[in-house]
Amino acid sequence: MKNKNLTGEPGRPIIAITMGDPAGIGPELALRALAKTDLQEECLPVVFGDASVLSRVAEICRLPQPKQVISLADWKTNPQPQTAAVIDCEAIDGAGVKPRQVAEACGRAAYTYIETAIHAALRGEVSAVATAPIHKEALHLAQVPFPGHTEIFASLTKAKRACMMLASDEITTSFVTTHIGIADVPTRITQERVLEVIELTADAMQRLRGVSPKIAVCGLNPHAGEHGLFGRQEEERLIAPAIIAAQEKGLTVEGPLPPDAAFVTNKRKTVDAFVCMYHDQGHIPFKMLAFDVGVNITLGLPIIRTSVDHGTAFDIAWTGQATPTSLFQAVRWGARLAGGVTVQDDK
Amino acid sequence: MKNKNLTGEPGRPIIAITMGDPAGIGPELALRALAKTDLQEECLPVVFGDASVLSRVAEICRLPQPKQVISLADWKTNPQPQTAAVIDCEAIDGAGVKPRQVAEACGRAAYTYIETAIHAALRGEVSAVATAPIHKEALHLAQVPFPGHTEIFASLTKAKRACMMLASDEITTSFVTTHIGIADVPTRITQERVLEVIELTADAMQRLRGVSPKIAVCGLNPHAGEHGLFGRQEEERLIAPAIIAAQEKGLTVEGPLPPDAAFVTNKRKTVDAFVCMYHDQGHIPFKMLAFDVGVNITLGLPIIRTSVDHGTAFDIAWTGQATPTSLFQAVRWGARLAGGVTVQDDK
Repeated sequence: MKNKNLTGEPGRPIIAITMGDPAGIGPELALRALAKTDLQEECLPVVFGDASVLSRVAEICRLPQPKQVISLADWKTNPQPQTAAVIDCEAIDGAGVKPRQVAEACGRAAYTYIETAIHAALRGEVSAVATAPIHKEALHLAQVPFPGHTEIFASLTKAKRACMMLASDEITTSFVTTHIGIADVPTRITQERVLEVIELTADAMQRLRGVSPKIAVCGLNPHAGEHGLFGRQEEERLIAPAIIAAQEKGLTVEGPLPPDAAFVTNKRKTVDAFVCMYHDQGHIPFKMLAFDVGVNITLGLPIIRTSVDHGTAFDIAWTGQATPTSLFQAVRWGARLAGGVTVQDDK
Repeated sequence: MKNKNLTGEPGRPIIAITMGDPAGIGPELALRALAKTDLQEECLPVVFGDASVLSRVAEICRLPQPKQVISLADWKTNPQPQTAAVIDCEAIDGAGVKPRQVAEACGRAAYTYIETAIHAALRGEVSAVATAPIHKEALHLAQVPFPGHTEIFASLTKAKRACMMLASDEITTSFVTTHIGIADVPTRITQERVLEVIELTADAMQRLRGVSPKIAVCGLNPHAGEHGLFGRQEEERLIAPAIIAAQEKGLTVEGPLPPDAAFVTNKRKTVDAFVCMYHDQGHIPFKMLAFDVGVNITLGLPIIRTSVDHGTAFDIAWTGQATPTSLFQAVRWGARLAGGVTVQDDK
C-alpha cells in the first residue's frame, strides 16, 4: 500500500513533517528542515502546518521563507510535490498565535496537522510522518482525547498494538507504559503487554540493524523486586513469564534486570535495545546519553512515524535558538525506515 | 559525644567497616581495605566481622591475612587499637559459609556486625561506620525487621528523621523513598517528608562543600505531571509546597523538575544535589555516572554512616575479582565527614 517513491527519483521518499504546537519551537524547526539542502538529498520533506504561522516565524527568527506552499485542496488532487513544500492546513491564523503560550486553538491546530498527515500516510501519499513537538496541555484544552502522539497514531491508524521507542546510536529504549502517572504504572503492566513490547522492539531492531537483536527487559521495582521483596511481585508474576514466552518464540531476551544496573556502560555494550516499564525509567538514561540527537519511533503502526525526542521548549520558542538536530534525525530515520536510507551524524 | 581522634594521632579517625554478607564480596573488600596502607594515612580502619570468614576468604582469594584480630570482649574493655584490625564478632563459623548463596545464618551475621558497629559508634569508640554490602533476602530470611541498612541505622540510633544520599564527584542524589515497590511510592510521598529530605540534603552538602548548595527536586510523574495531567497532582499538592517551604527557610531549591530533563549534562553543572522521589529515579543516573566510585551516606543520624553503592555481587564473590574502589571511597568519605580529611580519587 505504501508508495515509497512518489517523486520518480529513486531513494528519495516523501516525508511528512507535522508542524507541532504553533506557539512552540515546531515552526522554526520545520523551517530549518525545509531549508536544509543536504536533508533533501535523502528525502523530500513536506511540512503539514500553517503557512501564515511559518511565514511569521520566519520573519521573526530571520529564517528563509518556505519556497513552495500547497493548499490542502491542491494537495488532495495532486499529492506529488517536486520540491520541499508546506501543505497549508489553515488550522489557525498566524497573526493570532501568542508565542510561548498554552492555548486551546494551538492544541487544536497541532492535532489537525497530525490527523491530516496520518491520512496522507494511510493513503500512501507520504512514506513516513516525522512529528515536531506538541504541548500536551494545549491538546488537553482542545479536548483532544489522547495524551500524546503515540496514542493519536495508534487510534487513527487503528493499530492493534503499538509502543513508543526512543532510538539513537548510543542507546535505544522502548516502553510498556508512557504518559501516565507513576501511581497508575503497576496496574497497567500485564504479561501480554510486556511480551507485545518485546516483540515490537525485536522486530524494529531486526529491521534497523539487519541482525537478530539482543533485548534486555528492566524490572519494575528497585533491584527488580529483590526476588519479590519490594513491590507486588510484578517481576515474577508478569515480566519474567513474558520474557520466557519471548525466548520460546526464538528471541534473544534477558531480564528482568535491576533498573539501576541496566544502563551502565558495560551492560549497554551488550544490548541492542532496552524494554522499560515506565516513561522515566527509559527517558532518564536516554536523555543523558542522546540529548538532542534522539528519535522517537512509534512501533506497531501500519505507517512509519518518527518524532523529535524533546518538547515544545516554550522558554526559547520563536527566538530561533532551538536546535533542529533531533527533527533532522527524525526525518532521516523516517526515510531510513521507509527506504533504507543511511542515517548520517548531523552534529 | 563523638570522639574524633581516639588514637592520639591528629586527623586519623577510627572508621568501622562492617563486613557485610559473609557469602558476598564484603569479606574480600574488607581484607583489601585492611591491607591498603595509603588509606591508613587518612584513618584507622577496623573491620566488624568474623575472623574465621576473613581468614578463609584471604586464603581462597590469595589476599593478605589480617594482621590484628581483637575479640569483641577485648574491644569492649579497650576500644583503642593502634593498627588496622578485625573486631571478631564470632557471629558465624567461616568453615560453614557457602559462598554466593543466600542464607539465613549469613543474614543474621551481617546484621550482628552492623548492630555491633552502630553501638560502638554511639559510644564514641569509632568516628564513622562504613558498610560493606548485605543481601536483603538473607536479611529477610533471618527475620531482621528492616529492608536495608538505612532503616537499620535509623532505628538503632533512634534517628527522628533520616534519608539515603548517594554522593560522588560527578553527581549526588538523595531519596524521599528507597526500598519499596513502585506501587507504594506515591502514597509515601508527603509534603513533610519532601521538605525533610531537602533540609537533610542541603545540610549535608553545606558541610561537604562549605558553601550554600543548590538543590534540585525532581517531580514524581513523567514531565513532572505536565501541570497535573499525569498522576495524582503529587507535584502540585506535595512537592511544590515543600520546595516553597524550603525556599522560605532560605534554602536555594528549584523544582519540581521533569525527571528526564534533570540529569542532562548542562543541568547537572548547575546543581549540587538532586532530591529524588524514588530509588531508581536517582539510582539510574547515579550508577551511569559514578559506577564503582559512588558512596552511600545516611543523612540525619547522630552518627556518621557511609556505604558502598553496590550490592553483594554473588556472581563474583570469593573470587578476588570485586573492585574495592567504592568501599575505599566509603571509608574516606566517612573520615572526611568525621574529621575533615580530603577525599582523593582512587582510580
